[in-house]
Amino acid sequence: MSFNTFGHLFRVTTFGESHGPAIGCVVDGCPPRIPLNESDIQPYLDRRRPGQSRYTTQRQEPDAVKILSGVFVDEASGVQVTTGTPIALVIDNIDQRSKDYSDIKDKYRPGHADYTYDVKYGLRDYRGGGRQSARETAMRVAAGAIARKIVPGLTVRGGLVQMGPHRIDRARWDWAEVERNPFFCPDAKLAATLGDYLDGLRKRGSSIGAVIEVVAEGVPAGLGAPIYGKLDGDLAAALMSINAVKGVEIGAGFSAAELTGEQNGDEMRMGNDGKPLFLSNNAGGILGGISTGQPVVARFAVKPTSSILNPRRTVDRYGRETEISTTGRHDPCVGIRAVPIGEAMVACVIADHYLRQRGQIGDTPAWPFPPRAR
Amino acid sequence: MSFNTFGHLFRVTTFGESHGPAIGCVVDGCPPRIPLNESDIQPYLDRRRPGQSRYTTQRQEPDAVKILSGVFVDEASGVQVTTGTPIALVIDNIDQRSKDYSDIKDKYRPGHADYTYDVKYGLRDYRGGGRQSARETAMRVAAGAIARKIVPGLTVRGGLVQMGPHRIDRARWDWAEVERNPFFCPDAKLAATLGDYLDGLRKRGSSIGAVIEVVAEGVPAGLGAPIYGKLDGDLAAALMSINAVKGVEIGAGFSAAELTGEQNGDEMRMGNDGKPLFLSNNAGGILGGISTGQPVVARFAVKPTSSILNPRRTVDRYGRETEISTTGRHDPCVGIRAVPIGEAMVACVIADHYLRQRGQIGDTPAWPFPPRAR
Amino acid sequence: MSFNTFGHLFRVTTFGESHGPAIGCVVDGCPPRIPLNESDIQPYLDRRRPGQSRYTTQRQEPDAVKILSGVFVDEASGVQVTTGTPIALVIDNIDQRSKDYSDIKDKYRPGHADYTYDVKYGLRDYRGGGRQSARETAMRVAAGAIARKIVPGLTVRGGLVQMGPHRIDRARWDWAEVERNPFFCPDAKLAATLGDYLDGLRKRGSSIGAVIEVVAEGVPAGLGAPIYGKLDGDLAAALMSINAVKGVEIGAGFSAAELTGEQNGDEMRMGNDGKPLFLSNNAGGILGGISTGQPVVARFAVKPTSSILNPRRTVDRYGRETEISTTGRHDPCVGIRAVPIGEAMVACVIADHYLRQRGQIGDTPAWPFPPRAR
Amino acid sequence: MSFNTFGHLFRVTTFGESHGPAIGCVVDGCPPRIPLNESDIQPYLDRRRPGQSRYTTQRQEPDAVKILSGVFVDEASGVQVTTGTPIALVIDNIDQRSKDYSDIKDKYRPGHADYTYDVKYGLRDYRGGGRQSARETAMRVAAGAIARKIVPGLTVRGGLVQMGPHRIDRARWDWAEVERNPFFCPDAKLAATLGDYLDGLRKRGSSIGAVIEVVAEGVPAGLGAPIYGKLDGDLAAALMSINAVKGVEIGAGFSAAELTGEQNGDEMRMGNDGKPLFLSNNAGGILGGISTGQPVVARFAVKPTSSILNPRRTVDRYGRETEISTTGRHDPCVGIRAVPIGEAMVACVIADHYLRQRGQIGDTPAWPFPPRAR
Repeated sequence: MSFNTFGHLFRVTTFGESHGPAIGCVVDGCPPRIPLNESDIQPYLDRRRPGQSRYTTQRQEPDAVKILSGVFVDEASGVQVTTGTPIALVIDNIDQRSKDYSDIKDKYRPGHADYTYDVKYGLRDYRGGGRQSARETAMRVAAGAIARKIVPGLTVRGGLVQMGPHRIDRARWDWAEVERNPFFCPDAKLAATLGDYLDGLRKRGSSIGAVIEVVAEGVPAGLGAPIYGKLDGDLAAALMSINAVKGVEIGAGFSAAELTGEQNGDEMRMGNDGKPLFLSNNAGGILGGISTGQPVVARFAVKPTSSILNPRRTVDRYGRETEISTTGRHDPCVGIRAVPIGEAMVACVIADHYLRQRGQIGDTPAWPFPPRAR
Repeated sequence: MSFNTFGHLFRVTTFGESHGPAIGCVVDGCPPRIPLNESDIQPYLDRRRPGQSRYTTQRQEPDAVKILSGVFVDEASGVQVTTGTPIALVIDNIDQRSKDYSDIKDKYRPGHADYTYDVKYGLRDYRGGGRQSARETAMRVAAGAIARKIVPGLTVRGGLVQMGPHRIDRARWDWAEVERNPFFCPDAKLAATLGDYLDGLRKRGSSIGAVIEVVAEGVPAGLGAPIYGKLDGDLAAALMSINAVKGVEIGAGFSAAELTGEQNGDEMRMGNDGKPLFLSNNAGGILGGISTGQPVVARFAVKPTSSILNPRRTVDRYGRETEISTTGRHDPCVGIRAVPIGEAMVACVIADHYLRQRGQIGDTPAWPFPPRAR
Repeated sequence: MSFNTFGHLFRVTTFGESHGPAIGCVVDGCPPRIPLNESDIQPYLDRRRPGQSRYTTQRQEPDAVKILSGVFVDEASGVQVTTGTPIALVIDNIDQRSKDYSDIKDKYRPGHADYTYDVKYGLRDYRGGGRQSARETAMRVAAGAIARKIVPGLTVRGGLVQMGPHRIDRARWDWAEVERNPFFCPDAKLAATLGDYLDGLRKRGSSIGAVIEVVAEGVPAGLGAPIYGKLDGDLAAALMSINAVKGVEIGAGFSAAELTGEQNGDEMRMGNDGKPLFLSNNAGGILGGISTGQPVVARFAVKPTSSILNPRRTVDRYGRETEISTTGRHDPCVGIRAVPIGEAMVACVIADHYLRQRGQIGDTPAWPFPPRAR
Repeated sequence: MSFNTFGHLFRVTTFGESHGPAIGCVVDGCPPRIPLNESDIQPYLDRRRPGQSRYTTQRQEPDAVKILSGVFVDEASGVQVTTGTPIALVIDNIDQRSKDYSDIKDKYRPGHADYTYDVKYGLRDYRGGGRQSARETAMRVAAGAIARKIVPGLTVRGGLVQMGPHRIDRARWDWAEVERNPFFCPDAKLAATLGDYLDGLRKRGSSIGAVIEVVAEGVPAGLGAPIYGKLDGDLAAALMSINAVKGVEIGAGFSAAELTGEQNGDEMRMGNDGKPLFLSNNAGGILGGISTGQPVVARFAVKPTSSILNPRRTVDRYGRETEISTTGRHDPCVGIRAVPIGEAMVACVIADHYLRQRGQIGDTPAWPFPPRAR
């Protein structure tokens, strides 16, 4: 990952500001002959799109993605497929309300990157957050939709597992539930209470943080690489790069600090399929930076929305002390919409490692290399 | 980060296995004319070196680092300095006990990367863990010693803040204490109890996890870059790439999930030095992926040592179910020695971003760009 | 350079096919606060644009570039400047004539990449050459227009120095002449004959190769880096990556093979400005991969246009032997329009190295380091 | 390629100065389970090694390579193989004569990088050229020996085709001859005259340039990638990065500038093996940056040795005008020993692209994709 590009063989470069003419990305290195239409991408964008429930910002944008390059109709099948050349995607910014920015253009909003952009670059596009806006994440979701098609049998799903003090009961985990409530929450009982909780926060002009869990199933064993190409290292970078994320963990994560070796190490038996079977998954599907074949489990913490109504002390770019309160369209819990974004980043990282593994080792799995019998 | 290299302008490539002839690294992109001798690196290696207390493995290696290239005596000063060309460092492996590996060469140790290396590569150097051995981290520490010399005014320090159920009391934090106890623990009172705790674990043939905190002071504001070159994204990758690490957080980290916007956003006032002053540091010194000038605070969780005496169920590379118990030299808490390693990784990331920032923006700070008065 | 991205700190990623909806690029890593409007880029595109004389293809496209991101009006000056975030540029494809591709969609045109794209990807966008079309080079020119603004005092100019058997007389070199004839030829006398020469070739349904020379003046000494980051290594890659280029040389180039050491080595004296003065420039401004401060001189050979009227033997993608002759809009000498493209690539490479040098060494020149007097 | 690393999936990082303790490299990304011993590498080093004939420098070094990591004995076969982890190679510098450097440490030798290293870094290791020494190329040759083992069926051979005014007669090309004369010249008749020619040059204290041709056979069709990952772009960078190289060309190269489209485009027929057969190879095995399956043919020009006895005008680092003449061990034609180096670079580039191609596309060739019959 460097600057505005992530990935090595599956490479995604994003561009665009919140209130510029458009946002977009270039997906380079995608294998050829993968069926791809806008309709493969749009549903994922629709999941992330704001304005779908009263719990997310009311900015209304169709977020209609256009493919500008890298696809062609395969004559044999009549289906539009990838050509192996760069796939450019673009979303026009429609809802750029002409707005009075006089209050925020000079003031640094606490928790936002206003000050750091100014101190780094000497100026910033302050309209809607400019490049720091979460609007950029739409392109991650779009790229993730392509990434999902690269690894055969891969499924990447996520859910909100904590909002403020409210945590899910893992015994009630139901993936189907995630699509049934506006919080992407796999615990129906918890989800039923989150609406009132958020309404209360909103009324107080406040906001709250959250924890998201992403699970990737069907990840082949052997992806990742020592030492600085570890699968978990790249996942950590990818998830930490999402706006407002302050922590990332894999498998047992921070709770591993309280485990003994006996509790933590996942014991192994042989499965009926002739492959090793792990009796637990504290590793989160990754050992030594390489996938085990178990589900890859990552979790990340999202801080509360920094744009809140309640006035905060701050300074402006002229060094004057002042106050600011943010009005306008903002999610009280940005963690909610982080679910599809987290899924997308995990899918992109796995697709990249899938291609890297195939490059170094080839299509044939290395193991079992020696004959079973001995 | 890719494969065995990390960093973009300050680039570190490591090599070597636990029981091969040597381990080493190549540090590329280091600025020229920085005074550098083995004696600048060795003290950091000595801090990480095993066998220094009964709480770490008794492997006895001097870990004497040799500089093979990239330095020359500056005639004007008579001091050996970097030349701007690659600095190769090497440590000979001395204590490669000839040992019977018959028990572990075919069996997959739970919690280790034995299975994943085999499944990826089709074979592995099983002696002492081969490339997965934490011995590789000596070269991170060596590279970190160089990185520390690049950013003027930078100080990077770390401490153990949790071991199993035992957490420090932050009110008792004393950096001087870190060097006084064998646990790198900034809380003297807690440190006094950890010896007995570890002895108990060792007697039971067990092990325990830990949490390490690294604080970098003197980080100039403006380091890091949107969107995939974020300072926290690179820190997350760097720390997650350390052996046995399962979680990384910045500033408030996972606890941010329970904070409201009012609690989380760090308010700003003007300091006496004419620079903004943050009234708290939940951001951990990073907003929007760019340093604020506050201390950069990162925390990471280390799982318990996987090599334990107590027998565990596993399989071997021939698909047979079996058991394994690990004898030999092992730290009951690998988290202890992770402190100097974590420091080194943070130093390397900051040095890299310092050079990247200078490349894009130049030596002159961008801010304050407009005149203060208006 | 990798896939569709080139550069390290000044990074350009291009996308788009000849007959897709648009072509474009993302320029990442550009320093902030550089004045930039479409009008800074358009003149360079207009120079490269086809259809400007009867000696280039008659495809008529305005090639109007749009900036989608990465710029903002600087309040202090009222001028639109770069923000340091990715600059996305896009050109809509207007003149996508609906055309009958039945002849070329299955047949492999000799000299084109039809076969290699098919063998690599299993399919290709055959409309107008798809991704292999020289249309992609418009984005190089656009990126080059930005690159030119990064290095203070840099001037990059090019000229056609050979077309088929016709070579310029260096004694007649006049930069002003380059803009006065449709061949970018610095030798007015030669230029006066090239029109008839090309008319003759066109009438015979043929085409011809050329050699282009690019000269960069104002390149600071010290750019480039050993060993694989050499300035000439990157120039070679950049120029060889232009469509139809088959050779690249620096300074004396291939003629250096016939020189003795006495003839080749550029002797040095002290100039009036206190800087070294080279008495010749066989080095082409680069020694050991690092710029000397002299003009950087690169030359590249462009093969003749492969699309010719005269029928050629070939095969189709079904393995059948056949013939093909190319009708339609084609430059008889693609080398002509390679002039602005070559300039752009040289500008991009120098801008990238300027930022890389500044990253590793800083703004202050390293030399003269020791006091002059001794 | 960046700084001291080249390649993307097959990555080589070199280090070391001419008169430091050692030179070495790290080869990262090599596929596992490839048989590898020092004896696979040493013969290539011996070919490049100086002191083997009176026509190359008399520096006497055994150049014995040691493998420090990345290999292990495969139990099944008893053969030492690569493990997929970084392969570190090192050669101790033996013949570091203690010598008086007082003449060259301050003076800039014309044609050398003395001045540019000083101007870039502010100091340089002047002993034997330091990092600019061609000694670094030994590690290229070592890495190339590994690269040769990666692509099944690949053969990479080179020969000297021009020395000063003397060019080979292609009708007499005999690969076997290359190993029979000290000039790696495939034309026995020409080789017979080169000894006297070089003796004459040496007596006059002079030196001469050369052109080398490298031919890679067995390159699978489909390697390389548009647009900035072209196979020829990477070859150009790799060859231009060799010390003293001033020009690179592919296939017809610069002579393509004088060809018509009819002469240049390689016509195609169907071969008996069911694959396309090209009737000529002006493309040098590469079209649109992608290999055609024909031999890849690259040529590069090497300037004359800059270290000559005859005195040259120059300046010193204190800005004083002076003269210098180089005594000591130097090849009168460095182009001779460039043959094995050029071969190695071509092998490394092809190995890298082979892995990249396999990553994006997989093991199965994409073509012929559609059914032959139609």
